[in-house]
Amino acid sequence: MKLKLFVDRLSQPSRAILIFCKVNGIDFEEVKIYLSQGQHSSPEYKEINPMQQVPAIEVDGKFKLFESHAILRFLASAFPGVADHWYPAEVFKRAEIDSVLDWHHSNLRRGTTGLVFNGTIGPLLVGLPLNLQATAEAEKVLLASLPKIESFWLKDDGPFLLGNSEPSIADLSLVCEIMQLEVLDEKIHKQILEPYEKVRKWMDDTRNATQPYFDEFHAVLFQAKEKLIKIRSRGDNAETKSTEKSA
Amino acid sequence: MKLKLFVDRLSQPSRAILIFCKVNGIDFEEVKIYLSQGQHSSPEYKEINPMQQVPAIEVDGKFKLFESHAILRFLASAFPGVADHWYPAEVFKRAEIDSVLDWHHSNLRRGTTGLVFNGTIGPLLVGLPLNLQATAEAEKVLLASLPKIESFWLKDDGPFLLGNSEPSIADLSLVCEIMQLEVLDEKIHKQILEPYEKVRKWMDDTRNATQPYFDEFHAVLFQAKEKLIKIRSRGDNAETKSTEKSA
Repeated sequence: MKLKLFVDRLSQPSRAILIFCKVNGIDFEEVKIYLSQGQHSSPEYKEINPMQQVPAIEVDGKFKLFESHAILRFLASAFPGVADHWYPAEVFKRAEIDSVLDWHHSNLRRGTTGLVFNGTIGPLLVGLPLNLQATAEAEKVLLASLPKIESFWLKDDGPFLLGNSEPSIADLSLVCEIMQLEVLDEKIHKQILEPYEKVRKWMDDTRNATQPYFDEFHAVLFQAKEKLIKIRSRGDNAETKSTEKSA
Repeated sequence: MKLKLFVDRLSQPSRAILIFCKVNGIDFEEVKIYLSQGQHSSPEYKEINPMQQVPAIEVDGKFKLFESHAILRFLASAFPGVADHWYPAEVFKRAEIDSVLDWHHSNLRRGTTGLVFNGTIGPLLVGLPLNLQATAEAEKVLLASLPKIESFWLKDDGPFLLGNSEPSIADLSLVCEIMQLEVLDEKIHKQILEPYEKVRKWMDDTRNATQPYFDEFHAVLFQAKEKLIKIRSRGDNAETKSTEKSA
């Protein structure tokens, strides 16, 4: 099958899919859709994904699909050679991974994307006004989600979610999400993650299990982080203070 | 397999699961968890679902699962006799249904639950202050989601989502979600749904495909609606005016 990935490496679900394909030897063409340039709103891209979001995929020039979890499930099922642990065929094991993936939407993802966009990317890179209420609400959701990962999803012995000994698509999706917090002010980032020792170890384990691709596809995130450090050091923004206040 | 469903019929994903089981001849024991009485926060229920939400299931007294989409996928896969159209085994068809289900979380569900809870259930039944900003934001998400269903998910010829001739778990989940809008002020409810002819027809088709169970499990919702009409008619609330303003 001929696979095209429509992605922006600055988007966390895009990175999850890129890493998944590389780790599993799935050949693809990377079509870069730069969100910062509004390329997701072009008429051409609307033909690929009418919801105007990344990631999306196209298979053999015909079949189109969006929503990153649906894409990960599809890739794990449709391409030969993907190890079973990524998305187990056994119904009970698969159901538990689906439960994590579904939980993610209204919890960790909602918190992270809301906090990063409203508190950092919007005001510092896009030029939107700082939305304090949206930032505070997203932070509340994030700070309620991380202890659930620490004390429930990682409660069993294995290094990965649900006590598994090898990673699943849920590990990849959630870890890429938390990585997005790297663009926050460094002090805030540390404050948010410091209480969660298991979360930090699990992130390291997921990174190690998917190297060298994990670092390869996160390089642009760290470039963005450097850019934001420079913008913040100019001291011409209200973001750091307000986020410190709400953290 | 011995199946227990932990549900509140006033919760839309609970109803989707109840209807799904009945339509597909899956035997179950219904354990009622009344959200209005805080039963989802009891220590006993935390053992079933640590996230303290309904629905959740227990299989053979051992396997526990929460998140309604994960439950629907599991029931369709693990119980014999469920027709393939509910959650097709073929990977391309299944991927499209997964795409709808994943899209639902951050769009239709987020809009509906936010609007119904913050604008109606919270202030009128739970005694919370009316949260105007949260209500307006949720309504915005809902009003952006409905045209996507009308013009994209229902764009093809069949009566169900994705142009299918028979319903899937996505139809059931999304229609039960929109049904929750019944508890809004009647005028507002009509204003919200009136522009979407295909959506209204699809809701009727989904109801007809799942009778008599659709009506059986929605009866409590219509009882709640009657109760809210009485509360509103006392004229001692600000909800109607504010929702009218934002609609």
